[in-house]
Amino acid sequence: MRLLVVNSNTTDSVTTRIGAAARAAARSGTVVEAVSAPFGLPLIVSRADWLLAGPATLAALAARRGTYDAAIIACFGDPGLEAAKEMLDVPVLGISEAAFHAAAMLGRRFGVVSFTAALRPMFEDCLAQHGLQARCAGFRMGPAFAGDPGLVAEERADLLVELCRQSVEQDGAAVVILAGGPLAGLAPMIAHRVPVPLVDGTAAAVRLAEALVGLAPPGAPRSRRPRAVTGFAPEISALYGGA
Amino acid sequence: MRLLVVNSNTTDSVTTRIGAAARAAARSGTVVEAVSAPFGLPLIVSRADWLLAGPATLAALAARRGTYDAAIIACFGDPGLEAAKEMLDVPVLGISEAAFHAAAMLGRRFGVVSFTAALRPMFEDCLAQHGLQARCAGFRMGPAFAGDPGLVAEERADLLVELCRQSVEQDGAAVVILAGGPLAGLAPMIAHRVPVPLVDGTAAAVRLAEALVGLAPPGAPRSRRPRAVTGFAPEISALYGGA
Amino acid sequence: MRLLVVNSNTTDSVTTRIGAAARAAARSGTVVEAVSAPFGLPLIVSRADWLLAGPATLAALAARRGTYDAAIIACFGDPGLEAAKEMLDVPVLGISEAAFHAAAMLGRRFGVVSFTAALRPMFEDCLAQHGLQARCAGFRMGPAFAGDPGLVAEERADLLVELCRQSVEQDGAAVVILAGGPLAGLAPMIAHRVPVPLVDGTAAAVRLAEALVGLAPPGAPRSRRPRAVTGFAPEISALYGGA
Amino acid sequence: MRLLVVNSNTTDSVTTRIGAAARAAARSGTVVEAVSAPFGLPLIVSRADWLLAGPATLAALAARRGTYDAAIIACFGDPGLEAAKEMLDVPVLGISEAAFHAAAMLGRRFGVVSFTAALRPMFEDCLAQHGLQARCAGFRMGPAFAGDPGLVAEERADLLVELCRQSVEQDGAAVVILAGGPLAGLAPMIAHRVPVPLVDGTAAAVRLAEALVGLAPPGAPRSRRPRAVTGFAPEISALYGGA
Amino acid sequence: MRLLVVNSNTTDSVTTRIGAAARAAARSGTVVEAVSAPFGLPLIVSRADWLLAGPATLAALAARRGTYDAAIIACFGDPGLEAAKEMLDVPVLGISEAAFHAAAMLGRRFGVVSFTAALRPMFEDCLAQHGLQARCAGFRMGPAFAGDPGLVAEERADLLVELCRQSVEQDGAAVVILAGGPLAGLAPMIAHRVPVPLVDGTAAAVRLAEALVGLAPPGAPRSRRPRAVTGFAPEISALYGGA
Amino acid sequence: MRLLVVNSNTTDSVTTRIGAAARAAARSGTVVEAVSAPFGLPLIVSRADWLLAGPATLAALAARRGTYDAAIIACFGDPGLEAAKEMLDVPVLGISEAAFHAAAMLGRRFGVVSFTAALRPMFEDCLAQHGLQARCAGFRMGPAFAGDPGLVAEERADLLVELCRQSVEQDGAAVVILAGGPLAGLAPMIAHRVPVPLVDGTAAAVRLAEALVGLAPPGAPRSRRPRAVTGFAPEISALYGGA
Repeated sequence: MRLLVVNSNTTDSVTTRIGAAARAAARSGTVVEAVSAPFGLPLIVSRADWLLAGPATLAALAARRGTYDAAIIACFGDPGLEAAKEMLDVPVLGISEAAFHAAAMLGRRFGVVSFTAALRPMFEDCLAQHGLQARCAGFRMGPAFAGDPGLVAEERADLLVELCRQSVEQDGAAVVILAGGPLAGLAPMIAHRVPVPLVDGTAAAVRLAEALVGLAPPGAPRSRRPRAVTGFAPEISALYGGA
Repeated sequence: MRLLVVNSNTTDSVTTRIGAAARAAARSGTVVEAVSAPFGLPLIVSRADWLLAGPATLAALAARRGTYDAAIIACFGDPGLEAAKEMLDVPVLGISEAAFHAAAMLGRRFGVVSFTAALRPMFEDCLAQHGLQARCAGFRMGPAFAGDPGLVAEERADLLVELCRQSVEQDGAAVVILAGGPLAGLAPMIAHRVPVPLVDGTAAAVRLAEALVGLAPPGAPRSRRPRAVTGFAPEISALYGGA
Repeated sequence: MRLLVVNSNTTDSVTTRIGAAARAAARSGTVVEAVSAPFGLPLIVSRADWLLAGPATLAALAARRGTYDAAIIACFGDPGLEAAKEMLDVPVLGISEAAFHAAAMLGRRFGVVSFTAALRPMFEDCLAQHGLQARCAGFRMGPAFAGDPGLVAEERADLLVELCRQSVEQDGAAVVILAGGPLAGLAPMIAHRVPVPLVDGTAAAVRLAEALVGLAPPGAPRSRRPRAVTGFAPEISALYGGA
Repeated sequence: MRLLVVNSNTTDSVTTRIGAAARAAARSGTVVEAVSAPFGLPLIVSRADWLLAGPATLAALAARRGTYDAAIIACFGDPGLEAAKEMLDVPVLGISEAAFHAAAMLGRRFGVVSFTAALRPMFEDCLAQHGLQARCAGFRMGPAFAGDPGLVAEERADLLVELCRQSVEQDGAAVVILAGGPLAGLAPMIAHRVPVPLVDGTAAAVRLAEALVGLAPPGAPRSRRPRAVTGFAPEISALYGGA
Repeated sequence: MRLLVVNSNTTDSVTTRIGAAARAAARSGTVVEAVSAPFGLPLIVSRADWLLAGPATLAALAARRGTYDAAIIACFGDPGLEAAKEMLDVPVLGISEAAFHAAAMLGRRFGVVSFTAALRPMFEDCLAQHGLQARCAGFRMGPAFAGDPGLVAEERADLLVELCRQSVEQDGAAVVILAGGPLAGLAPMIAHRVPVPLVDGTAAAVRLAEALVGLAPPGAPRSRRPRAVTGFAPEISALYGGA
Repeated sequence: MRLLVVNSNTTDSVTTRIGAAARAAARSGTVVEAVSAPFGLPLIVSRADWLLAGPATLAALAARRGTYDAAIIACFGDPGLEAAKEMLDVPVLGISEAAFHAAAMLGRRFGVVSFTAALRPMFEDCLAQHGLQARCAGFRMGPAFAGDPGLVAEERADLLVELCRQSVEQDGAAVVILAGGPLAGLAPMIAHRVPVPLVDGTAAAVRLAEALVGLAPPGAPRSRRPRAVTGFAPEISALYGGA
């Protein structure tokens, strides 16, 4: 199986890291290709960033159409997800979508832990968008953070373990999602200090994408009229069937 | 007051019509400027269209920054709305957002009527996004429609009156929203045949935007770091403070 | 435009203050008349008070019928609101209704801040009645208060600023409602100390009432049979068309 | 046990009928007194009626304070219920509240059947007020009705049986509420034609009121300051401890 | 009236205590029989325990069929409740079900207080199952507890009073449920220290079961085909009409 | 990977059919073992059946502990699921759980189609238990069915295609779940007649179980005290660590 992983920002070092994480989670028969967004922003943190990351992600998906059997949008908040599901004939999963569904299948209620309260509104909106609020035991977030996102997982590891424990003991979480890009890769490092499973979005998305390939008969084909799009990358025009 | 109305698609004839409708609803002191999306699609009907219309709408808003006191996104589904609220220092309203809020203030429960069931999923998602489901008495939609959207309001006027009546009599609606671009302008024509007020999104958005200008002290200013954006129109780069 | 503002309690000094606040928020062409409830209670704090304030408010509205184009019920909890919307041919808004809708249009999620936890249950019921719970980031209330309501805004200004900041930083509020009669007029005084817009219910109601006048075609007229009411003020009997 | 039953309208013939129904449902040791609202309207059908019926109901309850151990508000929509619970030291139940709770305890999901769709919005609001929407399998209502409410139960008996059956077979109701004053007394007459239990609000309220008397220790007494009320019946002033 | 009370665990000393509590709450004409589960576990604390307690409870109910007019499942979490309602011709109530409904009828919002946070997830699931979340003001639970459940009510009495007060003052509870088997009997002991009514599940279930007997005409009888069950106690086979 | 599939009823011919369906969906490296419930009922259709099927399913899971890496409960309604997740150290999925999550990941909203309205209440409860109601576009069920469940898929194939189409066209479903055991295997036969993907619960559960194995670090081990269970199969006693 061929799996395309799209990093919705333009930072190649992040793409490399995500690609490695995806390969580590994938089955032996899965070939992972990881690509950056072809344009947009080097970091996605605001609602406006998320808006711009949508077409950029769709362009990356469109550019490689036909070369993958499933795709992952590797950016918390899942920019472009609904459009990609609509336009592409293969399964497309977002990493927050995957984290929420995997966690819900692993335990009755999941906690969401992250390093800064600033991310909470977007995470809550994202959870609501996927409709799984009733399965969430609550959010536990660290205080405001102004340092280097690349180091926060290490610097705040003890705090995050404590937040996970509070999620379990106070909120009744049976499983905890470590949310937000900068916490990717942290789960295996702190798992022995937390009494419930820890879910990482990228790993969850890889596994669930593998599961969905070929699962459901796709239904009778629907033809789409070609339509002209202006002002976006040619890959998007091609996706719409325009010249 | 200066009001910018952005048509999220690229069809200038639609922009002209929307501009006229907005001027008809505006107060005498309000100066309305209506513009088309600078790029994107001539018609917004799918989730992918909606995704692409977001940055296009934001670009139109960014291009005229400083020339308006409030803005309206005149496309059902409100593409780019959250990002625009976040990035701009003036009130920005979507026409579906405005229709839902105005209807909720005019009556205990509002019905939503449109000409084709195909629009229902996007309308329901939009309603959920604005959080007003509990105020909605239900949707009443006509059957699939393959004709000219520009003529549907006239062709299906009798059907739409009947759907409005069902919304009132069966669902208990105290007010009805005529939803979807092609029904703009229909409300005054059929109002005498329906026993409750009929809400038009564009008119609602104009009035509510006027109301919000200057309503709330904006709060202490927050500085934003300039950030570089690639692959989008220069207006968007400027909005981000990039070179 | 003529706007009637009804203070649902019988305390004329409060009515004077509300009238001034309404005039300050109104457009130049809006003529504001503020009246006290003709009977009832000098202060509305309990559910029973709220019950009695309903007919008193309706009587005030009925007494001046024909002299206003829109009306405001200036009492948090909006006593008599649904009945007034049903019986009157002009828009009627409550100040809590207006605060919730205005805040929802100004930002993705609004916080509600007030000076004492004792008000929380009624505010939450009121929010639920208007159906906007999903847009609320949470309540932040001060401790029990036994002093003079007329002085609480000043005495607890620092506490209220702190609660606003918690609402923004911990709960993710993009806008904050200062709720409860005794906080009227506080918003402009503390706005420079809070990083998001602050919404005042009276100002919001004035502006939104102006917006709704003439917005929607009223629908075909419905005749009402005259009905006899006993035991209430003659204005209410007149409203019912009785002798 | 002494039980006061308040008919929230002023029609004594209805009060007589409700009193008889209450006595039929009561235990042998329960003494039922049924009274009409001392003022207000002869029939409660609109939101404004409901508003006026609240203080009228509270006045009836206040007038006999000390002569009953529990009380019932016998009007669908439960006017004055929250205020009565707050002000009185004995259990007070509304007949719609009682119907919803009894039905929920008798089966997993209850249907609501009534003779005309016109009542649906108020019934749905009432259900939402009591918070039991998730237990409701749906509403099945007859068409508009312009005849004599006193005869509708007989005239539409076959229709109502059919609606009950649809509620069971299509909506999965395990129990059905016959809602609305004019259907009081119908349940035993059609029970043999419907395959699930039928709940009547008055009977449910009598039984549940009996159950609640003495059930929970009332908690430490709270003193209330006397407060002056104007413009209402002297019973209400007395309830507030005024002169 | 004959009332069967089933303790869903196998510990006879607990059954004796529950039986005494039920008799204390019952009317003079009610004959209470309390029985232990015929098999299963001596204490129900986990989801697996709850699963096994279901058939054990049903077996106890089946074994005495015909000897009672109503039954109570005296185990928080209400194991076997839905099946018992479906299979038996008499009302069956769970003690958590009864606590939630009684509390909702006694006040606008109820708090839930218990001695350890470990019980919170199951209580919340149980509340959701009964659909009354909107009436709950919140949970207040003590810290982890590893002592003797039989002594916790006394040992933590002061803490529980404090939690009740927080529920009232911070959360706005108008009534508080003391939840969990080990708190049975505590309500009358601390009632004078808490300013709102305290609800005990067993007492509530006894009273509400008495209320439901004979309340609703049972509907036309439905025949059930006999079906064979294997591996369960003969009482359950008999319930299914098997040999 | 070793996958245990438990048919929660005792009918071996059904087990054989489910086993074949599971193997058809599984990856090449997955070894499927399908077993019947060791006791209970030959068909699970009522709430009481579901209750009894829970321990029977748990017994089957317990009997083979250590011989599988993940397990599936192959009975719509997922009897015993929560207990199995709690007690076992490997992922356990129910087929309705899997169908809901897979469908939610494949499209924005899923429809649920089945052959008889009699199943709707249990399906709706099951959907609510998994918390995904907001993702469901609605239920479309055939009329009452009294024939042979083994033939209903063929006999009602045309009806089911029509219900699927209504789900897509009227309700806006982007994917449809064919729900209920008797429809297993129907999806590939009618897929070409329906314009969206069709989800089968057994296939979804196999794929998602494969995905969850090894996905999340299991967390620090928690010791459980051995506890004695009586009256259930020895496998269950062993699961509890009893002698």
